[in-house]
Amino acid sequence: MSEATGRAREGRQGALGRRAFTGRLLAGSAAAAGLGTMATSASAAPKAPKAALAPPGGEVRHMSLYMEALDDGQMGYGLEPGKASIPGPLIEINEGDTLHIEVTNSLDVDASLHVHGLDYEVSSDGTMMNHSQIEPGGKRTYTWRTHAAGRRADGTWREGSAGYWHYHDHAVGGEHGSGGIRAGLYGPVVVRRKGDLLPDATHTIVFNDMKVNNTLPGPDFEATVGDRVEIVMITHGEYFHTFHIHGHRWADNRTGLLTGPDDPSPVIDNKTVGPADSFGFQIIAGEGVGAGAWMYHCHVQSHSDQGMYGLLLVKNTDGSIPDYEHMDHTASGDSKKKSPSADKSATGGDGAKSAEGMDGMEGMEGMEGMEGMEGMEHMDHSA
Amino acid sequence: MSEATGRAREGRQGALGRRAFTGRLLAGSAAAAGLGTMATSASAAPKAPKAALAPPGGEVRHMSLYMEALDDGQMGYGLEPGKASIPGPLIEINEGDTLHIEVTNSLDVDASLHVHGLDYEVSSDGTMMNHSQIEPGGKRTYTWRTHAAGRRADGTWREGSAGYWHYHDHAVGGEHGSGGIRAGLYGPVVVRRKGDLLPDATHTIVFNDMKVNNTLPGPDFEATVGDRVEIVMITHGEYFHTFHIHGHRWADNRTGLLTGPDDPSPVIDNKTVGPADSFGFQIIAGEGVGAGAWMYHCHVQSHSDQGMYGLLLVKNTDGSIPDYEHMDHTASGDSKKKSPSADKSATGGDGAKSAEGMDGMEGMEGMEGMEGMEGMEHMDHSA
Amino acid sequence: MSEATGRAREGRQGALGRRAFTGRLLAGSAAAAGLGTMATSASAAPKAPKAALAPPGGEVRHMSLYMEALDDGQMGYGLEPGKASIPGPLIEINEGDTLHIEVTNSLDVDASLHVHGLDYEVSSDGTMMNHSQIEPGGKRTYTWRTHAAGRRADGTWREGSAGYWHYHDHAVGGEHGSGGIRAGLYGPVVVRRKGDLLPDATHTIVFNDMKVNNTLPGPDFEATVGDRVEIVMITHGEYFHTFHIHGHRWADNRTGLLTGPDDPSPVIDNKTVGPADSFGFQIIAGEGVGAGAWMYHCHVQSHSDQGMYGLLLVKNTDGSIPDYEHMDHTASGDSKKKSPSADKSATGGDGAKSAEGMDGMEGMEGMEGMEGMEGMEHMDHSA
Repeated sequence: MSEATGRAREGRQGALGRRAFTGRLLAGSAAAAGLGTMATSASAAPKAPKAALAPPGGEVRHMSLYMEALDDGQMGYGLEPGKASIPGPLIEINEGDTLHIEVTNSLDVDASLHVHGLDYEVSSDGTMMNHSQIEPGGKRTYTWRTHAAGRRADGTWREGSAGYWHYHDHAVGGEHGSGGIRAGLYGPVVVRRKGDLLPDATHTIVFNDMKVNNTLPGPDFEATVGDRVEIVMITHGEYFHTFHIHGHRWADNRTGLLTGPDDPSPVIDNKTVGPADSFGFQIIAGEGVGAGAWMYHCHVQSHSDQGMYGLLLVKNTDGSIPDYEHMDHTASGDSKKKSPSADKSATGGDGAKSAEGMDGMEGMEGMEGMEGMEGMEHMDHSA
Repeated sequence: MSEATGRAREGRQGALGRRAFTGRLLAGSAAAAGLGTMATSASAAPKAPKAALAPPGGEVRHMSLYMEALDDGQMGYGLEPGKASIPGPLIEINEGDTLHIEVTNSLDVDASLHVHGLDYEVSSDGTMMNHSQIEPGGKRTYTWRTHAAGRRADGTWREGSAGYWHYHDHAVGGEHGSGGIRAGLYGPVVVRRKGDLLPDATHTIVFNDMKVNNTLPGPDFEATVGDRVEIVMITHGEYFHTFHIHGHRWADNRTGLLTGPDDPSPVIDNKTVGPADSFGFQIIAGEGVGAGAWMYHCHVQSHSDQGMYGLLLVKNTDGSIPDYEHMDHTASGDSKKKSPSADKSATGGDGAKSAEGMDGMEGMEGMEGMEGMEGMEHMDHSA
Repeated sequence: MSEATGRAREGRQGALGRRAFTGRLLAGSAAAAGLGTMATSASAAPKAPKAALAPPGGEVRHMSLYMEALDDGQMGYGLEPGKASIPGPLIEINEGDTLHIEVTNSLDVDASLHVHGLDYEVSSDGTMMNHSQIEPGGKRTYTWRTHAAGRRADGTWREGSAGYWHYHDHAVGGEHGSGGIRAGLYGPVVVRRKGDLLPDATHTIVFNDMKVNNTLPGPDFEATVGDRVEIVMITHGEYFHTFHIHGHRWADNRTGLLTGPDDPSPVIDNKTVGPADSFGFQIIAGEGVGAGAWMYHCHVQSHSDQGMYGLLLVKNTDGSIPDYEHMDHTASGDSKKKSPSADKSATGGDGAKSAEGMDGMEGMEGMEGMEGMEGMEHMDHSA
């Protein structure tokens, strides 16, 4: 697979909402974000802007999704007719938001939209059992609600909706949507809590049966050293896998980020996952390790040997990247290719384009200023 | 499978101790329970009683278990002769309790009782290696101890015994009890910590090989909106699964409930599980999503397609339930049936009947007053 | 398998650094260790020394590793020529340390060293893609860095390197090292945080395909009641497993130890694991359960039936151990053998010998004084 192909596939995956609320936040008060005092251990570094944080939710949003046939019997969700992708578009909302999604079924079979983690009534369950699938050519509005954490009347604590969730069909090929999922009817949902860190870019990796985002090898992703890159990792289908990424790691908790020194969560770089599991995390690209081609892959040995891998291509700020060779999984072995010269203009954000088809979105860019990471970089090597 | 069958199976599973100590707690001091101040975010709601909490342990209890053959080569544990069930009875104790269990082996093969998570000497290990199995027709007393958390003499912290554990045979069909487990010799153990929230009902779901509680489809469970329903989820046998429930979610930590706003545990609705794993959680039935037929299932697609699912039937307080159709996994497809009219009198607690055969148990009921949930319900929809 | 064989295998696995920095710490100030006040709940117990804690890191260390062929096509890493073992030697460092490892490839195929969790540049990635494998007969220095947790310039929290990690080949038999891993090219890495509890002995258990440390049954380990025994558990290869140990349990978090009463981590004795997962924990041998032969095994029933198990042999302080029989997995069944009389002199530390081939190591012993556990023991049984 060429990098270009990988990026094209990634490019087909839209994203909802981040640029809009980032813009809003940056125009507002960073002091309200609750992160406490400024850096101490890296205080010699150039003054860095504080990281952007998610605002409170509470909006009522409306969007459209289209279920469509793709090449080779595959199927996808898209924000507009003719724009279906695998995975489907990233849906990103804040705790307290309500989302009304009008889904059009352009397939020739019953299909549906089922979401994990969010609040929905049985009429938005997406199951045939609850009569909430859609006939070919039909439309149906699914309503997803979310809520902030809070104390119930009886004094107990109720969790909030924040999390790395996902949606998928629950009707194609049987009561459990096995055919729809296999064909590609799935996508990521991120619900953020007020104060959650916002990434520069979000990339979705789905281990579906023995493929990654329904292809082999999986997509490559690009970033520049210091970018805050978010990965949403979803598993589907029949098999179990372990997700591993080279040179980077995350906390095995709600956000993938430790809340501070007292957070007991394990920090890992390899995680066992099974069908319909989802988790996410943010990494600072190249932090402590520098630019380079960093592999991610399933660590079940035969799965990686069959091509369940892709690359996180982390570039230096001048656009350069240390030399690497794309892996070769063919028998002949003559198809190895050298790393392309990095395209500086292609950096970041390709998974986070502002989306059309959703109310109240403004297309803003405002996530520069990660150069403060450099101070941290130096700190790493002074030990 | 008919609902009635599902409930009958569930009804065969007894429970030890909750009603008794709940009664004791409610007669005692709620102020000592340590939950802190009353609801704030839901303060407009009708005054709700505080949730019932587990008392301190420290009792020495005695009980009996009988290992018996069931139909079709299956085997079960029961509290009385002729009452064996799959899963075996729920054993529910408090940190600090000691339990002496006299086990009678009414099978025609060596069998045993092995427990996870609790303290036991090698003489109560239940392994042939440690000579702690029981011959056909024999009896043996196994002693399980539990302890509260505390600081050791060297200053280090020792964890307590609280958890969602389980017991199983370790002798039928080989050194590891593979034959006994396959046949149904397993059951749940819940050890509660002082102050843990007590549920209205506890249901046990065991993914054992490709079945749920040794049957397909799995059992259905009933609840009314606002009930605090506890699920103990255990896996056994040869395979890995993912446990998923529709419309509800839990924290992936000790209790399945967040301890408060600083708890970093992920909130999930899907979890990868393997043989002898166990976990548990409590949900407020229908919270934020309302009444309805909420599916639980293994999310490995072929496993759910083969019938590894069941329903949590959540009724409105008037006993009604939104219309649904039972799923059909047969070839002909003509066996679909409409949802029965809900039986209002059948609500809750069927998995929590006070048990016989155990010392110091009083049969008390005292878990009303979940109507305070209504305030939360309204809050959900006002976002 | 005889015990002696198990211990011999274990004995082949060296360890780096603990005795050295333990000695340093004990010579230093325990007050700086931050564990807070002395025991309260066990205050009637004899005064016990405080547990030994990890010091801060920051050293630059140099070591050598040799990749060599072993019998039957197996391969291993070793600290000296001719000393390769499966698993390879325990590499134990502190957050902030840098480790330069000169690796000699004495195999007849390209091979490499890839580490999980630590900081390394692409030149130390160990992949063919990044040109960091070693040709037969060649040498290459891999540099691993680690860092303490701290706040970044933008105010966000960066996790530290502490964790139970591992290293393995990434080049033998293909791009992902599947052949090298299968043959035995893997080993444990422990990165400790300042203040982490130091164990009396560390044992490594690797489920690799259907074997334990590339053999069946797995190794036995010895300890005396009250020893603080650390287990590093790694999985490799093709399959998923569940790791279970009898009579002991751990917290499913970074250290395997709860940080205190507010730590929400689940306490478990069974964990689903897949290829390249790693975790670790410390147990007090026999705590609350006494001496005996405590089995550890994969709880996938057919895996344990095929021999994926071993024993933690916990002796009384007089060297005695309750009678047990080694399990028999042969067809004839006549090879069962009685437990040997325990060898008091063989206790502890066999997995923690001070290593040669690494700078700045002093061979010190200083982990006595676990008799304070006795107070805890009595507490257990008084419930």
